[in-house]
Amino acid sequence: MNERMILTATVMGLGMHHGAWRLRDGDPFDYADPDYYAQIATTGEAGALHAIFLADTLDVSEERFARPNLGALDPAVVLAVMAAHTDRIGLVGTSSTTFNEPFNLARRFASLDAMSRGRAGWNAVTTFVPAVAGNFGGTPLPPHEERYARAEEFLDVVIDLWESWEPDATVGDKASGVFVDPARVHVLDHRGPHFAVRGPSTLPRSRQGRPVIFQAGASEGGRELAARYADVVFTAQNTLGAATAFRADIRRRATAHGRSPDEIKVLPGLLPVVGSTTAEARARKEALDELRGIGPELEKLAMRVGVPVTELRLDEPLPVELIRTNGAFRGSHGFRDAAVELATREGLTVRELLYANGGGHLQVVGTPEEIADTAEAWFTAGGADGFNLMIDAFPTGLDSVVDHVLPLLRKRCLFQHDYAGATLRVNLGLPPHPSQPWK
Amino acid sequence: MNERMILTATVMGLGMHHGAWRLRDGDPFDYADPDYYAQIATTGEAGALHAIFLADTLDVSEERFARPNLGALDPAVVLAVMAAHTDRIGLVGTSSTTFNEPFNLARRFASLDAMSRGRAGWNAVTTFVPAVAGNFGGTPLPPHEERYARAEEFLDVVIDLWESWEPDATVGDKASGVFVDPARVHVLDHRGPHFAVRGPSTLPRSRQGRPVIFQAGASEGGRELAARYADVVFTAQNTLGAATAFRADIRRRATAHGRSPDEIKVLPGLLPVVGSTTAEARARKEALDELRGIGPELEKLAMRVGVPVTELRLDEPLPVELIRTNGAFRGSHGFRDAAVELATREGLTVRELLYANGGGHLQVVGTPEEIADTAEAWFTAGGADGFNLMIDAFPTGLDSVVDHVLPLLRKRCLFQHDYAGATLRVNLGLPPHPSQPWK
Repeated sequence: MNERMILTATVMGLGMHHGAWRLRDGDPFDYADPDYYAQIATTGEAGALHAIFLADTLDVSEERFARPNLGALDPAVVLAVMAAHTDRIGLVGTSSTTFNEPFNLARRFASLDAMSRGRAGWNAVTTFVPAVAGNFGGTPLPPHEERYARAEEFLDVVIDLWESWEPDATVGDKASGVFVDPARVHVLDHRGPHFAVRGPSTLPRSRQGRPVIFQAGASEGGRELAARYADVVFTAQNTLGAATAFRADIRRRATAHGRSPDEIKVLPGLLPVVGSTTAEARARKEALDELRGIGPELEKLAMRVGVPVTELRLDEPLPVELIRTNGAFRGSHGFRDAAVELATREGLTVRELLYANGGGHLQVVGTPEEIADTAEAWFTAGGADGFNLMIDAFPTGLDSVVDHVLPLLRKRCLFQHDYAGATLRVNLGLPPHPSQPWK
Repeated sequence: MNERMILTATVMGLGMHHGAWRLRDGDPFDYADPDYYAQIATTGEAGALHAIFLADTLDVSEERFARPNLGALDPAVVLAVMAAHTDRIGLVGTSSTTFNEPFNLARRFASLDAMSRGRAGWNAVTTFVPAVAGNFGGTPLPPHEERYARAEEFLDVVIDLWESWEPDATVGDKASGVFVDPARVHVLDHRGPHFAVRGPSTLPRSRQGRPVIFQAGASEGGRELAARYADVVFTAQNTLGAATAFRADIRRRATAHGRSPDEIKVLPGLLPVVGSTTAEARARKEALDELRGIGPELEKLAMRVGVPVTELRLDEPLPVELIRTNGAFRGSHGFRDAAVELATREGLTVRELLYANGGGHLQVVGTPEEIADTAEAWFTAGGADGFNLMIDAFPTGLDSVVDHVLPLLRKRCLFQHDYAGATLRVNLGLPPHPSQPWK
């Protein structure tokens, strides 16, 4: 356990809450404007947040027509803009192992790592939304196991590319004309079931060695992938018990892979809806819910738990048996299990679950004290190494966190006053990237 | 013909000349640092250059070990950094139609267009270097015709994605909750021999409608692709006669495709090596040549013209018959023809050709006056709508152009004092992007 918690902030459109675009001041198409992202990055850095996380999807469903959602922009392009406006904050982006080539993806994130001087992170996802396949040839999304088998080989190739230049390969001797020591730059000649990649990387190692690897899958395959490769694990957890069990499981699996459990950081999502009083926070939440409407949320919940929307009744409990026995489930295990866990433990109706469930994540509607209390309780009980903050609506949701929640956490010695160093790896308290001889 | 010439500047590593990294001050690994690109972009904008062009390759040959070459960084990431440091200059990047998915590429360049508020351009290439295939599955590079057939379908898909939102699709009415008019956002459901893409785009149209399309192929297939799709054509031309014929051919082909010939701008590469006297310019060129050495240049020329390096003798003419009869040639027609044209017209030996040929492009070693004279002569004779400036070594090569060559061109009323507008499309003098009803 770290002494202090890690905090990242997620950007999805104009905010995690689907009503954000109607609540906030400003143009609803701000999410396509560079100033919007520059402001988020500089606010986050002023608050000493560890990283900004650009979520992503390659889905272009009709949801796009109802609100500014995620997946509009290529995360690497947006994060590069944020890099130019900041010096310390980490810059993490999602990219799919199913719909990219490892050579291109390795180069893209290595480029972001260079342009941010060692502040880049890659959140590796396998993509579980079937509709995405329609933009990439139309053959159906591969089944779960096949996606994870590809992801594993994909990660191997990307990591080997990022490590193909030994740290001292960069000679740069103008007098002799020796630019690189070719004996220290290694061809991969990778040939596997999914990929053949010659390599080497196009770039030397970055200031942090290589980009930090994030992962978010909660299925058996996802947990194993995280335990083997991830530096940071994002997770959706709605009760402390489930969070503690999940974190312990990830740490145990990492140990089984020969890693120190402290080398892998587990960050549950936390959606704070902040008010100066509890009533003010609730009013903000209710205004957002009102602006969003309940129909699309019900459909989203149905998709998340894998049952037809007609099986959900607002004032009755979740049909847990139906959910548990659905062998055809193809969605995110993490989001499904978190919803079921919360509804069951707290005995919630569907309507109460929709209110309580922050887009799948732990939600606290309350004062800065109440939010800090929950964060502290989870952190000290071993449920989290920190949190991935899901901001309800930008910019006010982030401003409230930075201005009111973070100072409280600092008073309690739970959050940093300033960055520990210049790279994301150092700031996350991860061990220095090993500069071992090339295998 | 424009009244004034269009000028873009190409970034390849630390400069077009392979000796650049040894001549210039500064760290030889500056090409992986954001300040290097920020400085180029701000200098270019101070000079009112129309655009910065990030060349690219996906080749990872051993050439990488000899010098900081092109292809190190993902152009979209670097251009996004440049966008954050500038307000007016265009930002153009190469990306391959052979080794990308159209959905990903369309989103990436649309994202750059959004983050630069309408200043993005895409230089569509099919990739002719066989070694690149080794990083993408290892099957051999498809033959020329197949690459161009794929490129054509790729461009159709990308353009349809970029146009899938009608200009007035963006409602954004907070009161009623109508974000987008779904009737004005169109699914593609494209199904062709190479791609199946559902669409629509993830983003509304940008301030310039859609990214500007650049193209650089000089083969029959390349010229046809340019005439159909390109707003701007980059070309390698070493004599005014060949340049004039090429430009006339492109304009004729554009007309045959129902376009106005003035809607397509032809920019030959121009490599200026600037000195305050001719002797000083020659001294710079000789210092660069000395630092580079002649061996790798000879090999590169052999590759360009498609003969074994053993067939080239420094003090004899090019083996033109051998070059012309090589039916197995797979490289760039533009570079090959330009070298043969120059060597033949001027009666050059291989050694003289290596000196005279600016990495395949027109080269002028001389004073700002001499460089302006050549540019003016080509421009007024109809050989060019402007030039793509190949900078020999950054930053001094670009500084010399901005400080000494551009003021001369302005005095002659051949170059702009300031930008005409805020988008690349406007600044290039292209017609506004048509907002015609969706087909």
